[in-house]
Amino acid sequence: MTAPIKPLTEPATTFARRHIGPSPRDVAAMLKTVGSPSLSSLMAETLPGSIRQKAPLDLGRALSETEALAHMRELASKNQVFTSLIGQGYSGTILPAVIQRNILENPAWYTAYTPYQPEISQGRLEALFNFQTMISDLTGLDVANASLLDEATAAAEAMALTERASQAKTKSFFVDADVHPQTLAVLRTRAEPLGWTLVVGDPLTQLEGADVFGGLLQYPGSSGAVRDLRPAIAALHTKGALAVVAADLLALTLLASPSELGADIAIGSAQRFGVPMGYGGPHAAYMAVRDALKRSLPGRLVGLSVDSRGQPAYRLALQTREQHIRREKATSNICTAQVLLAIIASMYAVYHGPEGLTHIARSVHRRTATLAAGLRKLGFAPRSDAFFDTVSVDAGGKQNEIVARARSEKVNLRIGDGALGIALDETTTAETVEAVWRAFGGKLSYAEIEKTAIDALPAALKRESAFLTHPVFHAHRSETELLRYMRKLSDRDLALDRAMIPLGSCTMKLNATTEMMPLTWAEFGSLHPFSPSEQAEGYHALFARLEKWLCDITGYDAISLQPNSGAQGEYAGLLAIRGYHASQGEAHRNICLIPSSAHGTNPASAHMAGMEVVVVACDARGDVDVADLRAKAGQHAKNLAAVMITYPSTHGVFEEHVREICDIVHAHGGQVYLDGANLNAQVGLARPGEYGADVSHLNLHKTFCIPHGGGGPGMGPIGVKAHLKPFLPGHSNNGKSAVGPVSAAPYGSASILTISYIYILMMGGEGLTRATEIAILNANYIAARLESHFPVLYRNAKGRVAHECIIDPRPLKNSAGVTVDDIAKRLIDYGFHAPTMSFPVPGTLMIEPTESESKAELDRFCDAMIAIRKEVAEIESGRFTVEASPLRHAPHTVHDIADDAWARAYSRSEGCFPAGTSRTDKYWCPVGRIDNVYGDRNLVCSCPPISDYAEAAE
Amino acid sequence: MTAPIKPLTEPATTFARRHIGPSPRDVAAMLKTVGSPSLSSLMAETLPGSIRQKAPLDLGRALSETEALAHMRELASKNQVFTSLIGQGYSGTILPAVIQRNILENPAWYTAYTPYQPEISQGRLEALFNFQTMISDLTGLDVANASLLDEATAAAEAMALTERASQAKTKSFFVDADVHPQTLAVLRTRAEPLGWTLVVGDPLTQLEGADVFGGLLQYPGSSGAVRDLRPAIAALHTKGALAVVAADLLALTLLASPSELGADIAIGSAQRFGVPMGYGGPHAAYMAVRDALKRSLPGRLVGLSVDSRGQPAYRLALQTREQHIRREKATSNICTAQVLLAIIASMYAVYHGPEGLTHIARSVHRRTATLAAGLRKLGFAPRSDAFFDTVSVDAGGKQNEIVARARSEKVNLRIGDGALGIALDETTTAETVEAVWRAFGGKLSYAEIEKTAIDALPAALKRESAFLTHPVFHAHRSETELLRYMRKLSDRDLALDRAMIPLGSCTMKLNATTEMMPLTWAEFGSLHPFSPSEQAEGYHALFARLEKWLCDITGYDAISLQPNSGAQGEYAGLLAIRGYHASQGEAHRNICLIPSSAHGTNPASAHMAGMEVVVVACDARGDVDVADLRAKAGQHAKNLAAVMITYPSTHGVFEEHVREICDIVHAHGGQVYLDGANLNAQVGLARPGEYGADVSHLNLHKTFCIPHGGGGPGMGPIGVKAHLKPFLPGHSNNGKSAVGPVSAAPYGSASILTISYIYILMMGGEGLTRATEIAILNANYIAARLESHFPVLYRNAKGRVAHECIIDPRPLKNSAGVTVDDIAKRLIDYGFHAPTMSFPVPGTLMIEPTESESKAELDRFCDAMIAIRKEVAEIESGRFTVEASPLRHAPHTVHDIADDAWARAYSRSEGCFPAGTSRTDKYWCPVGRIDNVYGDRNLVCSCPPISDYAEAAE
Repeated sequence: MTAPIKPLTEPATTFARRHIGPSPRDVAAMLKTVGSPSLSSLMAETLPGSIRQKAPLDLGRALSETEALAHMRELASKNQVFTSLIGQGYSGTILPAVIQRNILENPAWYTAYTPYQPEISQGRLEALFNFQTMISDLTGLDVANASLLDEATAAAEAMALTERASQAKTKSFFVDADVHPQTLAVLRTRAEPLGWTLVVGDPLTQLEGADVFGGLLQYPGSSGAVRDLRPAIAALHTKGALAVVAADLLALTLLASPSELGADIAIGSAQRFGVPMGYGGPHAAYMAVRDALKRSLPGRLVGLSVDSRGQPAYRLALQTREQHIRREKATSNICTAQVLLAIIASMYAVYHGPEGLTHIARSVHRRTATLAAGLRKLGFAPRSDAFFDTVSVDAGGKQNEIVARARSEKVNLRIGDGALGIALDETTTAETVEAVWRAFGGKLSYAEIEKTAIDALPAALKRESAFLTHPVFHAHRSETELLRYMRKLSDRDLALDRAMIPLGSCTMKLNATTEMMPLTWAEFGSLHPFSPSEQAEGYHALFARLEKWLCDITGYDAISLQPNSGAQGEYAGLLAIRGYHASQGEAHRNICLIPSSAHGTNPASAHMAGMEVVVVACDARGDVDVADLRAKAGQHAKNLAAVMITYPSTHGVFEEHVREICDIVHAHGGQVYLDGANLNAQVGLARPGEYGADVSHLNLHKTFCIPHGGGGPGMGPIGVKAHLKPFLPGHSNNGKSAVGPVSAAPYGSASILTISYIYILMMGGEGLTRATEIAILNANYIAARLESHFPVLYRNAKGRVAHECIIDPRPLKNSAGVTVDDIAKRLIDYGFHAPTMSFPVPGTLMIEPTESESKAELDRFCDAMIAIRKEVAEIESGRFTVEASPLRHAPHTVHDIADDAWARAYSRSEGCFPAGTSRTDKYWCPVGRIDNVYGDRNLVCSCPPISDYAEAAE
Repeated sequence: MTAPIKPLTEPATTFARRHIGPSPRDVAAMLKTVGSPSLSSLMAETLPGSIRQKAPLDLGRALSETEALAHMRELASKNQVFTSLIGQGYSGTILPAVIQRNILENPAWYTAYTPYQPEISQGRLEALFNFQTMISDLTGLDVANASLLDEATAAAEAMALTERASQAKTKSFFVDADVHPQTLAVLRTRAEPLGWTLVVGDPLTQLEGADVFGGLLQYPGSSGAVRDLRPAIAALHTKGALAVVAADLLALTLLASPSELGADIAIGSAQRFGVPMGYGGPHAAYMAVRDALKRSLPGRLVGLSVDSRGQPAYRLALQTREQHIRREKATSNICTAQVLLAIIASMYAVYHGPEGLTHIARSVHRRTATLAAGLRKLGFAPRSDAFFDTVSVDAGGKQNEIVARARSEKVNLRIGDGALGIALDETTTAETVEAVWRAFGGKLSYAEIEKTAIDALPAALKRESAFLTHPVFHAHRSETELLRYMRKLSDRDLALDRAMIPLGSCTMKLNATTEMMPLTWAEFGSLHPFSPSEQAEGYHALFARLEKWLCDITGYDAISLQPNSGAQGEYAGLLAIRGYHASQGEAHRNICLIPSSAHGTNPASAHMAGMEVVVVACDARGDVDVADLRAKAGQHAKNLAAVMITYPSTHGVFEEHVREICDIVHAHGGQVYLDGANLNAQVGLARPGEYGADVSHLNLHKTFCIPHGGGGPGMGPIGVKAHLKPFLPGHSNNGKSAVGPVSAAPYGSASILTISYIYILMMGGEGLTRATEIAILNANYIAARLESHFPVLYRNAKGRVAHECIIDPRPLKNSAGVTVDDIAKRLIDYGFHAPTMSFPVPGTLMIEPTESESKAELDRFCDAMIAIRKEVAEIESGRFTVEASPLRHAPHTVHDIADDAWARAYSRSEGCFPAGTSRTDKYWCPVGRIDNVYGDRNLVCSCPPISDYAEAAE
């Protein structure tokens, strides 16, 4: 008992241990399987020595989860939650607790992937279908998509759509002077490289002479004014131009819909339907169009089709519109949507229903009318007599004083050009209205003034048409009903909380609970993006440190956190290159080399940045063909702007020649854009900024743990070398820059940056590096286990894959008629999400396990793949034809197993519970294989009572 | 546009609208079905006019959810979270975020009911089995139960067990002087009415002469001292007495187990395994016993059995031990367990595993040894040289100064009898240890002192035996693995988040998300129950207001929030009556009249309060037989202590004679105990304290929205008329009382009182009254819809049931051989939890829908019952025998439908998807009907690798 106490030699449980799947013992066993003596030798075999970073990451001590949360509390306390009356497209809103807990904070929803495998995504597809129905109903337009990134980029997409679809042959676009300033700024950024001119003016007086292909009108205006836009829209139509209306969804419950005004397209934000402002995002924007434009609609669209039994089933419709098909002809690079936020907004509407939404709108309007009455009494008549929830007031010389007085009561007003804006929302209380009056110098009683309030909605614009008539918006008024509805939908989907999602190209790693906690704290959630920065010191400290860390990780000198998706990051990065060339007097440089293996967004982004795409070939190994690159760089030397490469390559290999590629491009005056989609294979091992790249975007929703949310949100900050720093996207609220903003908010989807921040905070440099090593080990382990069953397509000279591997089932098409689709759908029966199928090599499967999957789960997956290969062998050996095989009938559903007239060539058990799967805990796919062609031929994107279909089918 | 703005006539969405299922339109339709013109006339037909309350509830304005959360933030800010080093059975602990979010904050876990229907409870039964395995392993004892209420009541239960099981014929029980003071106090309360004497002393020196039936020893002692208890245990055994050891679970990872010391029984708290202190609870206590004692073990016990296919399946074992069978012979009234908390503690162990737990223990010990070394250096040598995580120090005259200095650093120490206690835990940092040293007057460096620290665990007591060797404690080290394990288990269970749980006797209403939010805030979760009350002003404001509200609701004059289960409430209420009689010089009054229809806990509680039970008959209507009551009251007039009645009756009827019953008992000198289990039928309509009752317990986990947690926690505060107020349970930390404490903590499970508080806050008097009316409407609606298919057993003279109704399928036993079990299990196939089966009338089904179920869900349930009746008719008509019927084979599982050799008299579809059920969204019961007899004959309550069984069966 008097012995000195023994030191604790074994390590405490670190967060890294919780984040990383395989245990140290598993790692040893897996190294044996892949045939490498140690992790470090495996790394040496995998990465070219020439790119390995010298200095280890220097990110400070890794914090425990408890310490990290305490630190986040500290940061949070440096943000001040004022009442925001700033408006400008961002409103206070009440996220119902039942939705917060059971969607936003529920891994069954937030860890799901984009619904490319629709059979296992029926729950969120239904929720998105509800979203589309809601948008379609409120705007009155025929087809709404499943969300866009933010209102400003939605406006830019709409501009591009009108340019494509309009009959007017001009390069000018009209913009309402009363649009939100950030929308105008993003439109300017977007128009400039494409050579389009913006004509800004009053649509009711200044449209006449304008020669434009389209026009954007805001409804109500950013100032709050509610104008009858019908004459302006008619004027646009007279020119053969298309009319886009940016509309506030809550206002639309009381006002005539954009469609009724004559609009062709409506866009806007669904933020105020329950989604916290989050200092800028993420939120779902929307776009709806007339039927004639539906095939030009950017973004994702959920449509109804039928499954193998003819039952209704949801899926992504019209996928051929997507930029990964159009590639360099694309005019939009939209890829990520804001699925999780669109779902929240849709559930907000499901919970409130039309009468509830209308009630909220009327309450807000009543309060605004009261506010206006009080302001008039105080001698500050609103500029417009017609308004919904926002008024603008000329405060003259008293402006500063009023703003300061309001702030002293913790209320933020909008400081406009010569006017103050005051925007109310469902959270505004009578006390706040009284505080505003006090700021304007008067002590008035809300109850008294309310009696004198006058309805400020123009009679001619009052909404008469019904909306949200579908039963789903009427059946869930009690919390119990809504809770069960959300549970039912989430149960239909297969997400990371149940199984590995082995998607090459998408890094589906753990989204740890601790990482997800702070973003729903009021101090992060309730800040308006344009609130004074001194109220957001916590955020700014976080941004600064995150930028510093990301610089250390990537080897870049500066970061912009603004791009709110990977594609936006590409676009911002190319704009930086463009701006740089122009600053060097070489504005003519406009050729962008892109390997044929690139992500589809690459050429689309290049096009948007005003560049021309020249495709570079790949060699037999899948690597960039260096000779071809050298030739094309030479050929275009005078106009060479950039190369866009992905590293490790989209084939999942660390190409030996990456430094050489960079050198070639630099030698010809070009810049190197390195797509950061595969950064998860490099963190701690190699820094793009050190081995030759000039700029990259970083998919925080891949490498840095922001969950996929079922198809968004994402975040795509960019890192640049010092010479590109002046060309990072600017923002009116964020200092001046040579390049305009690419997102509505200065820091993109700021609130979810907390996730990546906490991840790095808890992993530390050592943990992050270990994660990279295990990600590579896991991929090589899968390659080793599967290689005797399927060809493994691409490897480096030492036989190693990077963090993902491609297996090739194409020979099975010849030997057995089995398609890659058959395998993907059959994997569902085994309880797995399919790997990436159509990219980069059609007909193959690209598998990325990430570091978070344990050996047990990897084995379960490999066992399933091997068992599937055996099933193929049974076709080859003639036990049954491919048409009669379980592969072709996959996925098997409850409807199949319940079929009393089962007459398959295999037993129910073989079909539904293939080798190694658990009967008890089986995930039942809710629908059979979905007919894509039927869905596109019979496009239904909103509203038919789904139950009618179901009843008809039963 | 100049029209005055229209007032908002339609009501905004109130919380009451979200809480209550039926819409106003549904209510109108349902009134039609039940044949009543209005809700108020239905109430007039249901409740006797004589008991209707005159004044409406006066609870203040109902707050919206947003307002309520803001109010709770305000209250929370009045609690101060100090670092607690108080110990005394409550430790700081780290609840892993992944467990917090996915169990404690997940309705799939917290809304589940007690696993009386084991087939649909396999997930939480497995988690509880893990808990039992963990307790059994750590204590070394053979059989552990699935949790008890708190350590002090567990000690009292253990004392009662030793009294029952011991060979020593004496009425004395030995108590270690070094037990926690609250344990001693609860033992005193428990011993007194039973005529048992407590002998308190040092077990190593003062056991010799004691003539006792058992002894309780604390390990480590409350002071922190680690003593070798083997001699004391041997001494107890020599007397034929049984040895109970109260052991700290974390210490047991390093110390020889109670079993190895010779103990017969171990008890203690599992709080420090991840469960927040919550100002007293809820937490899970444990009890483990040697094999020979297993049939005397109180509380619930999960056992392994087999299902209809011979596959392993969990269930509650040895149910015949329960007080509802033993009734007035019971020596324990234990009913509610602490399931949710036991599950959390088990998951904490699953996540950390044996090596993780050991590491935590060693870290804590190392820090404590360092603390001790520093204290010695400062001249304050700990009293004991052998300790684990707690030291006691004589501070002499400096005590107050030291305590004050520590508090100035936001650290609480334990103020003992002449000594200061300092208890460390996994959250204690080096900085805190330095703060303690400063409080003792020295500025020492932790890093320096740590080098001089000495191991303080006695070599002779070091643990050698292994624990947590089962694979479940080794397979879930990554967050991903644990997340999936928890999801898998929750998916096996059917809880309120998927379907109605129509349990008569249990009021399974909405547990609203907003109600659940504050309890996991640190300001409510992290307070030690014995922290100074000035640090808990928020809690005390909440208690005061909640008590006032409950007084208004019940008509009582005072409330005690201490009892942490309904049964504890009964016991506390009877102790109050006992105390009152004694104060009136009538200590001899010991007869308790209890109707034959009473809850099983009633007679057990009466027995524990030292009373003799006299059973009163019920009449044909199910009402108390007033004549019999009058006769027995007269017969026992001299010794009449009390009557215990339930109102509305356990038959679900408002008896007309309740006032008369109260009057009769009062006239004979007795007190009226009114069981508040059915308060949900009265809130806002009638007040027990006004129509004659003297005391009631209120099941906050029924009427006031605390979720059932899968079988606990519960809360059973009692309300009393003024004359009983002096006899409410006291507590050393809570002023003096004539009656001792009944729970370890002064305010029971304080943290979950927030739930009931917020519920009342958001409903207001009007909302609560409406909820009661709708609860009654819903029950009458079910009775109306089912009465032509099943006899509805009990109604009042006007044909109305109260908030529940009993339907009688017993005739079907004769006509078709169908048992109530067949119907209950068949309901699972329809996606429902069965109603209450065995109570109050064996063979019948008691249905309580509550106000939270919508008309749509009630209809779904009624449709299922009617469809089942049709299936019975098919047996009656000879289509198949009962043995061959889907009723007898229910529940149908995936294993059934997958059976390629299906040879049933009905089709797969008929079996698995009976009329009206959804195939797509079907809940699949994971096991078939469970064999209870097999399980009791082959009792297995921990540890056999379940996979072995599964493999064997496949």
